[in-house]
Amino acid sequence: MMNRKINVILTGFGTVGREFVRLLEEKGPTIQQTYGVELQLVGVAGRNGFLYDPDGLDLETLLACGKGSAALDQYAKHHQLSLQETVFCGDVLVESTPTDIVDGGPALSYIMRAIDNQMDVVALSKGALVTAYRDIMNAAKAIKVRVRYSGATAAALPTLDVGMYSLAGCRIERIEGILNGTTNYILTKMHEDRLTFEQALSLAQEKGIAETNPALDISGTDSACKILLLANSLLDTDCTLRDVRIVGVEGITPKDIERSRARGKRIKLIAKAYRESDGVSIEVSPVELEQDSPLAGIAGTNKGVWFHTDLMGTVCIVGGASHPRAAAAAALKDVINLFRRD
Amino acid sequence: MMNRKINVILTGFGTVGREFVRLLEEKGPTIQQTYGVELQLVGVAGRNGFLYDPDGLDLETLLACGKGSAALDQYAKHHQLSLQETVFCGDVLVESTPTDIVDGGPALSYIMRAIDNQMDVVALSKGALVTAYRDIMNAAKAIKVRVRYSGATAAALPTLDVGMYSLAGCRIERIEGILNGTTNYILTKMHEDRLTFEQALSLAQEKGIAETNPALDISGTDSACKILLLANSLLDTDCTLRDVRIVGVEGITPKDIERSRARGKRIKLIAKAYRESDGVSIEVSPVELEQDSPLAGIAGTNKGVWFHTDLMGTVCIVGGASHPRAAAAAALKDVINLFRRD
Repeated sequence: MMNRKINVILTGFGTVGREFVRLLEEKGPTIQQTYGVELQLVGVAGRNGFLYDPDGLDLETLLACGKGSAALDQYAKHHQLSLQETVFCGDVLVESTPTDIVDGGPALSYIMRAIDNQMDVVALSKGALVTAYRDIMNAAKAIKVRVRYSGATAAALPTLDVGMYSLAGCRIERIEGILNGTTNYILTKMHEDRLTFEQALSLAQEKGIAETNPALDISGTDSACKILLLANSLLDTDCTLRDVRIVGVEGITPKDIERSRARGKRIKLIAKAYRESDGVSIEVSPVELEQDSPLAGIAGTNKGVWFHTDLMGTVCIVGGASHPRAAAAAALKDVINLFRRD
Repeated sequence: MMNRKINVILTGFGTVGREFVRLLEEKGPTIQQTYGVELQLVGVAGRNGFLYDPDGLDLETLLACGKGSAALDQYAKHHQLSLQETVFCGDVLVESTPTDIVDGGPALSYIMRAIDNQMDVVALSKGALVTAYRDIMNAAKAIKVRVRYSGATAAALPTLDVGMYSLAGCRIERIEGILNGTTNYILTKMHEDRLTFEQALSLAQEKGIAETNPALDISGTDSACKILLLANSLLDTDCTLRDVRIVGVEGITPKDIERSRARGKRIKLIAKAYRESDGVSIEVSPVELEQDSPLAGIAGTNKGVWFHTDLMGTVCIVGGASHPRAAAAAALKDVINLFRRD
């Protein structure tokens, strides 16, 4: 098998972007051998500019430089390079800048410019896709490039792949899932250890599960972004966040939990998208589930999703690690699947 | 999007083969529209010969003729055709003859001849792959064609796809699952309704869940075939059924079930393949699981599988309908994924 060399450009060098580079370094030889693809990182864009070497960056040195734009500065100095304007001259863009759900932020312009330059796109952050799904897809279709975003739709829990490949040929009638690990951890702790919402949130923050600003998670917005992308991809909708009915978990009290427990039920934050006679409804809200229902059994930071189909019945997927390395692995998977030659 | 016309040859016109044709008829227009592929059935091989029309068979008439080789005879008569020697002049073979795990049976020769004629292969039956996995794969690699077999590895429960695509880039350390619906139904009935093995088997036969000759299922052989194919595909082994330690469910008594119940456990027929220091072990046997373990919760004819990976943690998939239509849908999925242009 002849190896194919693929030039990768990475935008954003935060925790997940750096994990992606680490995986390229650790897994490079195995990927070449298994999939016939040599992945070469030629550029990384940070806040201060674009680190570019058409012959491939030295991954070991880059990783040793730390993370963020400071690391790019340091690498440039070490190799006597200058940071420059970002150029999109590679085979695939891996987009990992912070999620901006207001207008997509820099991610959106990176993605559109990559597409204009005939690059395939693998998105890790959700903002661009959530705010401009149809624009991105139309542009990609016109230029005949591909866009993948496993990292933005529950990452190591396979959702998009399963919908697109494993269920190809089926009509997906309904998707429902627990798509956010932080809120599931909070609800699990409230149920199992009888903590208040505030106590459970603090614990999640102490453990590094919840971010310092947990608003996106606890408001249900993160779950809404994921189910929105799944609906747009798999149920042929053309929706934005404004079309999603969102209720978060902030208002849930120990009394609510007790009441559920007394009825033999459990409260979970459920994201769902389902076909109705007049279209598709998408919503995120806390739902009381029977204790023995499969989604009720998903505990802690675990996630899970159900697909209801016409031909293959119901397929349920649970698990997938939720650390940054696993998110990076989801992007790596997308890159491999775009270019594999095995 | 320009549609691509794909000529399909089907071998075997039993229950599942016929369901495949029915799906081609029902879903043809949607498949064209969604995936840019026009699937045209040009030939069907049965015991009495090969029904062939290079312009495409008339699916509605074929379905109206019933099933099996009698249906092919009737169609030929109706259209003033003669059954002939099988010719492999299409883009893809869909192999659906009965599973023969002794030497692969006609399926093996069909598959090898299709590969020789540069056709891709989608297998529904297990026999050829179980008996000659390496030969088939080597031949396919040499001719540069592709072989898919979702229908032979738990069908509507996605296993092979998830391992190949959703977990691409990961090292799969261990696969374990409940891969046979009939034995899971029997064990569920023994546990929940305190039936004896014989009573549960009779019930499964009455309901059409177990076949008249249930030997392949209850001996654990069917599960062994599936885990063997998953190991060969995803753990780089080159094993045959002789390498699989197999214990079936025939010997399980109500006393065994009671003993498990008293310990808060459940007996399940678990198929597993896992890496050890000196290679990969593959085995099928009844295992006592904790009541609250996720595989213990898989009841009735449901199936499920766990993948343990280095990068993405554990991913568990449960469900997938187990009727013939769902098995046919698994083959249709494979065909779509081989040729899709969306």
